Amino acid sequence: MLQYHVGQREKENWLIAETDFDIRHQGKCEAIFCLGNGYLGQRAALEEKYVGQTRDMLINGTFNRFDEQEVTELPNAADVTNLELILDGERFSMDSGVTENYLRVMDLQTGELTRSLLWTSPSGKRYRLAFSRFVSLSCRHLLAQQVQVTPLDGPCRLQMDSGIDGQVTNCGSQHFHEGSKRVFDNTILRMTQQTTQSRVSVCLHTAHRFFLGDTPATGKMLPVIDRRLLSMRATFDLSPHIPFRIEKLTTVFTGRDQEYMDLAEQDAIAQAEADGLALIKKALCTDYDTLFSESRKAWAALWEQTDITVASEGAEDQLLLRFALYHLNIMASKTDSRMGIGAKGLSGEGYKGHSFWDTEIFTLPYFTLTQPDTARKLMEYRYLGLDGARRKAAENGFLGAMYPWEAAWIDDGETTPLLGAADIVTGKPIPILTGLLEQHITADVAFGLWQYYTVTGDQDFMNRYGWEILLETGLFWASRAEWQEASGRYEIRDVIGPDEYKDHVNNNAYTNYMAAHNLRLALHAMDILDAEESAAASRLKTQFHFAELREKCQAVLDRLYLPQPDENGIIPQFDGYFQLKHLDLTPYRNAGSVGSIYQDYNQDQICTFQVHKQADTVVLLLLLDDLFPADIRKKNYYFYEARTLHDSSLSKSTHCVLAADLGEDETAYRFFEGCGNVDFGPNMGTSDAGIHTASMGGIWQCAVYGFGGVRVIGEDLQIRPRLPKAWHSLRFRLVWRGQPLTVSVNDQSLQVQNQGGQAVSLLLNGVRTEIQPGAEASCTLS
Amino acid sequence: MLQYHVGQREKENWLIAETDFDIRHQGKCEAIFCLGNGYLGQRAALEEKYVGQTRDMLINGTFNRFDEQEVTELPNAADVTNLELILDGERFSMDSGVTENYLRVMDLQTGELTRSLLWTSPSGKRYRLAFSRFVSLSCRHLLAQQVQVTPLDGPCRLQMDSGIDGQVTNCGSQHFHEGSKRVFDNTILRMTQQTTQSRVSVCLHTAHRFFLGDTPATGKMLPVIDRRLLSMRATFDLSPHIPFRIEKLTTVFTGRDQEYMDLAEQDAIAQAEADGLALIKKALCTDYDTLFSESRKAWAALWEQTDITVASEGAEDQLLLRFALYHLNIMASKTDSRMGIGAKGLSGEGYKGHSFWDTEIFTLPYFTLTQPDTARKLMEYRYLGLDGARRKAAENGFLGAMYPWEAAWIDDGETTPLLGAADIVTGKPIPILTGLLEQHITADVAFGLWQYYTVTGDQDFMNRYGWEILLETGLFWASRAEWQEASGRYEIRDVIGPDEYKDHVNNNAYTNYMAAHNLRLALHAMDILDAEESAAASRLKTQFHFAELREKCQAVLDRLYLPQPDENGIIPQFDGYFQLKHLDLTPYRNAGSVGSIYQDYNQDQICTFQVHKQADTVVLLLLLDDLFPADIRKKNYYFYEARTLHDSSLSKSTHCVLAADLGEDETAYRFFEGCGNVDFGPNMGTSDAGIHTASMGGIWQCAVYGFGGVRVIGEDLQIRPRLPKAWHSLRFRLVWRGQPLTVSVNDQSLQVQNQGGQAVSLLLNGVRTEIQPGAEASCTLS
Repeated sequence: MLQYHVGQREKENWLIAETDFDIRHQGKCEAIFCLGNGYLGQRAALEEKYVGQTRDMLINGTFNRFDEQEVTELPNAADVTNLELILDGERFSMDSGVTENYLRVMDLQTGELTRSLLWTSPSGKRYRLAFSRFVSLSCRHLLAQQVQVTPLDGPCRLQMDSGIDGQVTNCGSQHFHEGSKRVFDNTILRMTQQTTQSRVSVCLHTAHRFFLGDTPATGKMLPVIDRRLLSMRATFDLSPHIPFRIEKLTTVFTGRDQEYMDLAEQDAIAQAEADGLALIKKALCTDYDTLFSESRKAWAALWEQTDITVASEGAEDQLLLRFALYHLNIMASKTDSRMGIGAKGLSGEGYKGHSFWDTEIFTLPYFTLTQPDTARKLMEYRYLGLDGARRKAAENGFLGAMYPWEAAWIDDGETTPLLGAADIVTGKPIPILTGLLEQHITADVAFGLWQYYTVTGDQDFMNRYGWEILLETGLFWASRAEWQEASGRYEIRDVIGPDEYKDHVNNNAYTNYMAAHNLRLALHAMDILDAEESAAASRLKTQFHFAELREKCQAVLDRLYLPQPDENGIIPQFDGYFQLKHLDLTPYRNAGSVGSIYQDYNQDQICTFQVHKQADTVVLLLLLDDLFPADIRKKNYYFYEARTLHDSSLSKSTHCVLAADLGEDETAYRFFEGCGNVDFGPNMGTSDAGIHTASMGGIWQCAVYGFGGVRVIGEDLQIRPRLPKAWHSLRFRLVWRGQPLTVSVNDQSLQVQNQGGQAVSLLLNGVRTEIQPGAEASCTLS
Repeated sequence: MLQYHVGQREKENWLIAETDFDIRHQGKCEAIFCLGNGYLGQRAALEEKYVGQTRDMLINGTFNRFDEQEVTELPNAADVTNLELILDGERFSMDSGVTENYLRVMDLQTGELTRSLLWTSPSGKRYRLAFSRFVSLSCRHLLAQQVQVTPLDGPCRLQMDSGIDGQVTNCGSQHFHEGSKRVFDNTILRMTQQTTQSRVSVCLHTAHRFFLGDTPATGKMLPVIDRRLLSMRATFDLSPHIPFRIEKLTTVFTGRDQEYMDLAEQDAIAQAEADGLALIKKALCTDYDTLFSESRKAWAALWEQTDITVASEGAEDQLLLRFALYHLNIMASKTDSRMGIGAKGLSGEGYKGHSFWDTEIFTLPYFTLTQPDTARKLMEYRYLGLDGARRKAAENGFLGAMYPWEAAWIDDGETTPLLGAADIVTGKPIPILTGLLEQHITADVAFGLWQYYTVTGDQDFMNRYGWEILLETGLFWASRAEWQEASGRYEIRDVIGPDEYKDHVNNNAYTNYMAAHNLRLALHAMDILDAEESAAASRLKTQFHFAELREKCQAVLDRLYLPQPDENGIIPQFDGYFQLKHLDLTPYRNAGSVGSIYQDYNQDQICTFQVHKQADTVVLLLLLDDLFPADIRKKNYYFYEARTLHDSSLSKSTHCVLAADLGEDETAYRFFEGCGNVDFGPNMGTSDAGIHTASMGGIWQCAVYGFGGVRVIGEDLQIRPRLPKAWHSLRFRLVWRGQPLTVSVNDQSLQVQNQGGQAVSLLLNGVRTEIQPGAEASCTLS
């Protein structure tokens, strides 16, 4: 059971608690209580093992491919969180005996996860237990855990088994060679593993410290080396009522770390081992509390920069926003542009750590508008992925860059797996066509890039990376569009749009409009570069044949078929859409779980119905909203929403923002709550494979785009707030053209404070407003 | 808690029961209740999952190598035993709620494993549950399980999740590609996996049948395809007090099956899939009881042939003998000579399914003397391994065949891993030197072979395979022995004898004497072949240069140093033995677990003490007993036993037989009990990695060699019984020169019945006796 009000007033809206342990729902808290720092993510599997756990530690960018039949994925590194306690011969497990006063608390403010309980063993002996852990935000290579045991009924012999467990896999796929194991000074355990195909070495050091009360304690220490396993068996004699405390410290380095980028493989391993050993030795000289206070300071600074505050009648709204911000900030590497954002962040094995359009369309806006440095890293990641995108285009017979639907390591190219779940009709796994057909990702990258440039004005980025991406993606679309003699127009046939319940469709409106946008950006890029004398301009003019490229792009753009609203104002999602059959969606909309329609129909059958997994045309209405008049947007929103199952975590935030745009405040608020429910709500199974990063970005979009009314329109930042009835005030931060702004909204007014050193010009509730450095502008809301 | 008297009179001494469930001791019963048929072994992990389980299905001979850093091993095939029950939303698990009347019973007579219990769920609802399963002995590709649920408190919605789970690994090493999954008729689940390196395909089909009372039941069936996982989610509504029964049937075929040996890889897979599907369909037309009765009949026939009966005051002696016979009969392929016997049989991942000297010295005698056809397969396995043995010899600079210390697939050659557990001094894993230095295995193979020939007189085997092995191994020893100019003799330096607590020793007595025996056999082989005109003889004369080989073997044999007894009659285990330090072994002999000395000393230190892991010189005294007078044997037995920790399962049976030989009846009986304790006794951790096959053979040797007094001496079978005080009678079967004999012993007399068609000549209690077909001979024992 999750609880969102834990009863510490000064911590209100910072804590999420689990108030009882249910073995069936472990995946939920493992994911939503995931710890991390962008360098790695550590699922919150409990210290002691239970059936059904997924003990993941995913280190950003360490992709490996198990075999030729699988795609590359983020490998599950050896587990360091497992710590087994044998108390007077009885293994501590909440499965057995009686557990009382159970409370597990995730503190979003500090990044610390704690658990406390009173355990009565099967034989009737009582113990008070307390656990805590964090992944350091100040030192990304450092993890720490703490376990405290207090025997309440007489003395106790405690045995601890704890170390580094390399037997973990990704659902059975083992990505690591066994590697080497070593014990130093009968204290420090080292395991160095290497991935089987990508040859990334992961070097872990773990060590324990023991205390009886406040005094360092010594016990019998026996290191155990087993297959893929290195652990310490420590035995202590405890006295009643005196707390016995274990600190477990771990350092994580990999041969892929930025610091070692220029080293040869063997040198990188040696350096990772040396650095890991030095850091664990240094950590052993201090203690959990000191290390934690350093990390906590880093979190405090981050919250100072990123927090959103809301005064809401919705009891969990404030907490939900922080929950999303917490996850947005642990999923992305802020220093290493070789890494994207996985669809589950670093919180689970789902989607194999791959980056989808979720990044550009759902999470990038948060970074672009609040942490432009991180946004730049994410766009650089796409630049580094250009070779893979060029390869994919060439393999499919196109020019330019065709971005992978699923992207992993920078040079992996397309990494979408080929087979999915069972087809209930044929009994065979369903082929996954998205890698081939879901082509809008290329236009999404261009869209995200242009938004980044618009918001930041980052000319350096454009010269180094940005223009080239726009040109390559424009070239792709120019080659991709097919001239149809019969209709005398270019079409984009045989694709999957955002709505994955439809495949092999022609002229998906979202895809075609976004492709046109991409072509316009490429043409715009050439205009700008033509007018420039920069080194970048001359490099790109050499690399691309502007005259020819311009001609191609313009020809396609001029004649590209853009589906128009029919007599009812509805834009057909794709060719022949209106001929599809109607289906009563009630059972699936009420199913309480996603994908329930597949229990009745297979993919081929679903393709014949007017039913959608998620927002499709509706996303278009949001991203390119200046292309469509308000009444068209409204009609299409209602039409498509009624046919949408919201079986994707990418659906509700778009609907929320659009509903808010359309003045449907309460509907928007309901969708905002729905976004929360993706990971945060009562359905305990939804996050098993990891949290939904698009949903985290979506929650931010609901608040800032939807209710805050922030939008990048043309060259401008527009703020037109529309708070829902339940919200009385909202305060958030933005960075526009490098100037930090604080936006405060309440029922009556909008204030924007410019904390930067330069003036900014904004559209506040439709009125162009210039705000000088240090000044505040405000306007009244009707 | 294990219980050996389950209270069914007619089943007395056939059943082993576990009377309560202890999650810490799962490994014990998983191993000792292992089911199998020589084609595959299935550990007895419970249907529902628990922490600490090892869910192994090991298919004989399907060896695979995970990577270049590991050695080949028997891969853990997908698990089919898991079957989860959700009863009114509560997952059945004995961790939770209250379990009463728990009884798990292994029926050695029928090969069926059953479990029954009364479960009160956490919410207080009561259910009666019964489970049974068997691995068919009559159809080796077939496995069956049965689960019965009776709700006792009102109706119940039952959800079953059960199928094929390919997420299992060998301690984290995944040997299989994910492979293909398919569902037929919404009923039959198929998973076809292939090993990553050896390209062995394993094809599993699983299907369920459901009954309410005696009536077939239909429920909602939903196949679930997940990563490496294919299962059926079935939902049924149960009525109170009406038993609901699930039958789960599985077929197992591999591309390595004998039947497909001549097929190309793809054809073998296709055939395995077709045969598996046909068999599961056929099985679905019958039922668990029918299939079980066929398997039970095969077991009855086997017991008729193999049972040993004893009237003993030792309450568990009879059961222990059957326990050993049961395991001896499920560990070995009786049809496929491409497979040896793993040191843990097919009951666990320990020793990776590899064959050691355990086969020839500990388990082969059972097969040679009771199932010569199986013994022949095992010796053919060594013949098929000759290439690997020749390769090992060449790699080490020797001639002939140097058998691998650890043997896996026939052409794998040496497969001993390179690193073991932690060195407590250096903190690094201990190098495993046995693959290089424990060379006596080659002589052990020759010894076992010659015993097989002596017992069976199998000329066909010798001509096809046997002589060649003797010549190649003789050649090896001739090249291996080192001429020492100083001492004017050949020596065998830098080896490990049977006692693995000593490495890098010179002139290990066991090794040198056994090498001499091997050389004698090679010379003898040449004598016989020289006198023959057979095709085999001319082939071998062409292959080997007899004159040269004879000269080499004779020269080495004549001057090979064979350590002689010192003034106290003690044969030094190796050079310099008497200079080693004494060590008080009391703590390690009383430790209750093996290897405890490694907690105080590392290998280098242990090498400096007079301490032994296991019988070494004592094995020599048993195998080549005609070389040593009785007093020397006696003195050495006492001397070395006092210095032996019996930290190997290969130790006590040798001591038992030798003690019996020396008239130390009660000591012998104590060692027999000790053999039982290896897998059968109160120490719950000993069998976690699998049962000890050498110990199973050793138990048979205790009874038949030790108390039955059976020995192959020269060309003769000698029977000189010495029952311990606790035993009043003993009856066992032997096959001598193809003639089945029944041997009955009691306090007063020995009877031998010849059930064959030819007369046999034996030494009964020292007296040569001829027994005509169908006749019985007897003699009085003093």
